[in-house]
Amino acid sequence: MSVRIGIYGYGNLGRGVESAIRQNGDMELVAVFTRRDPSKLTVATEGVKVCHTDDALKMIDDIDVMILCGGSATDLPVQTPELSKYFNVVDSFDTHARIPEHFANVDASAKASGKVALISVGWDPGMFSLNRLYASAVLPEGKDYTFWGRGVSQGHSDAIRRVEGVLDAKQYTIPVEAALESVRNGENPELTTRQKHIRECFVVAKEGADLARIENEIKTMPNYFADYDTTVHFITLEELKRDHSGIPHGGFVIRSGKTGLDSEHNHIIEYSLKLDSNPEFTASVIVSYARAAYRLNQEGISGCKTVLDIPPAYLSMKTNEQLRKELL
Amino acid sequence: MSVRIGIYGYGNLGRGVESAIRQNGDMELVAVFTRRDPSKLTVATEGVKVCHTDDALKMIDDIDVMILCGGSATDLPVQTPELSKYFNVVDSFDTHARIPEHFANVDASAKASGKVALISVGWDPGMFSLNRLYASAVLPEGKDYTFWGRGVSQGHSDAIRRVEGVLDAKQYTIPVEAALESVRNGENPELTTRQKHIRECFVVAKEGADLARIENEIKTMPNYFADYDTTVHFITLEELKRDHSGIPHGGFVIRSGKTGLDSEHNHIIEYSLKLDSNPEFTASVIVSYARAAYRLNQEGISGCKTVLDIPPAYLSMKTNEQLRKELL
Repeated sequence: MSVRIGIYGYGNLGRGVESAIRQNGDMELVAVFTRRDPSKLTVATEGVKVCHTDDALKMIDDIDVMILCGGSATDLPVQTPELSKYFNVVDSFDTHARIPEHFANVDASAKASGKVALISVGWDPGMFSLNRLYASAVLPEGKDYTFWGRGVSQGHSDAIRRVEGVLDAKQYTIPVEAALESVRNGENPELTTRQKHIRECFVVAKEGADLARIENEIKTMPNYFADYDTTVHFITLEELKRDHSGIPHGGFVIRSGKTGLDSEHNHIIEYSLKLDSNPEFTASVIVSYARAAYRLNQEGISGCKTVLDIPPAYLSMKTNEQLRKELL
Repeated sequence: MSVRIGIYGYGNLGRGVESAIRQNGDMELVAVFTRRDPSKLTVATEGVKVCHTDDALKMIDDIDVMILCGGSATDLPVQTPELSKYFNVVDSFDTHARIPEHFANVDASAKASGKVALISVGWDPGMFSLNRLYASAVLPEGKDYTFWGRGVSQGHSDAIRRVEGVLDAKQYTIPVEAALESVRNGENPELTTRQKHIRECFVVAKEGADLARIENEIKTMPNYFADYDTTVHFITLEELKRDHSGIPHGGFVIRSGKTGLDSEHNHIIEYSLKLDSNPEFTASVIVSYARAAYRLNQEGISGCKTVLDIPPAYLSMKTNEQLRKELL
């Protein structure tokens, strides 16, 4: 029997979940929920119901896990506590500073309903968090580094688009190679913001706009760019569409640590991702954790969980016997 | 209160466990068990009892987790089932093909005694297994690669030492850089044994020995070297001691996988280790899993487990609240 999935929100992430479900033979997409007019939304998978979000509770008996594909700013803080009253849910809440608060809200709902709610699933938070945890538990005497990129930052691209005279823009976050090398060499450097990442911007300006002013406004923008070495390239709209339409991302989690009676031995643990599509990879992580949420709930477990709480074997389609034989 | 640890076997791994315990403030080394004469063994930590293995059962009430530091060939297949009748145990059983059998034997003992027995803990099996599992669950449409090295293979070094005319030797397993690059580029190559790793040998020959014959015997040795590109360097005993006394190791687990409705996006997940001391790193992994074994048993859980079954948070000294706040 398949795990029956609902997708709540059909943007880039929701579409990624839809395509990921097709790669998991034990999962079935039952319905997509949208705030728009359902009659005007066509989804890629045949036979899938498209429903209004207002009608979600009518599907309680038809859905084993509801995957919440809204944003962290305003959607998930409301939706995850609310929907975990009725469904096992998985979300990708990624506002790191507000995770404890979100956890508490969701835990109360999910404990009351007897459902499992898995929050902050994806790659950071998510796979990167797991790697920070494993590496720091194994090498308690050491130092962690997380680098992001090369990849598109949606927030920074949006910030450029708000500059007067800008038609469209794409911003790439890029780790500084020298910093990566120093970390990999076990030098345990103290790195400033500027020393860790550079920001590269591809900007389409409106006709007649003052390019020097735009470049200066971008480079001096507080929080977003002022603390970084930023380069700005002006390109045409055609070039932007042709060369920068993807949503790649990735990054590195590196721990450098010491062992031995005199801390004489050094060790480097490195985890890296190179992703052609940030939302599709995030969706793939979410779908494997939807399987875990379902299984845990079948065992009578409830409440809010994160990737740090989930036994790895629960993510896999394979049996424990297969996993021990083939992967251990 | 500390988790009270016993070390069963005091070779390289046992000494690594001893030094790892010093880095974990919630752990305490209570006793070291040896098959040798305990009065002739001095351990590095003051105040630790040195006991004969025959006396282990006298310490049942004093030890929370017994860490088994024997070998996989003959020690662990007997010791882990036997000692899990009395103690929570962790071993590093690494004969991949015999894991299912070992698991069954240990599970029967540990279930009967109500103890937790964690087997095959280390980095391969261990951290590499975890990464194979996570990556394949997240990217079901893809291909896994494991490379080992650059590092010392004890088995291959021993094989060289058995060649007539060889005084001492050290063998390094080295991944082929071109193969690594091809995998990282998402080319999903089919790789033969020879294409994945090369073997580099540093050999001290006895005086007057026939070097050409030794080199030929090494390079044509079935199973160990015949299927690899092998290089042999003859060096002096002094050089061997000066340049090759360490036990470094490491390796790479890489999964290349696709997502998207038309499998149009490629993703690379890479995990790598660069270890100055193979036994000390293995020991560090084991000690973090000893914490998990103790906690699980405190919760009433029993039976044989592997790294694939353990919720990551159980490895850490930090509370779940701290982990969510600091690492997620």
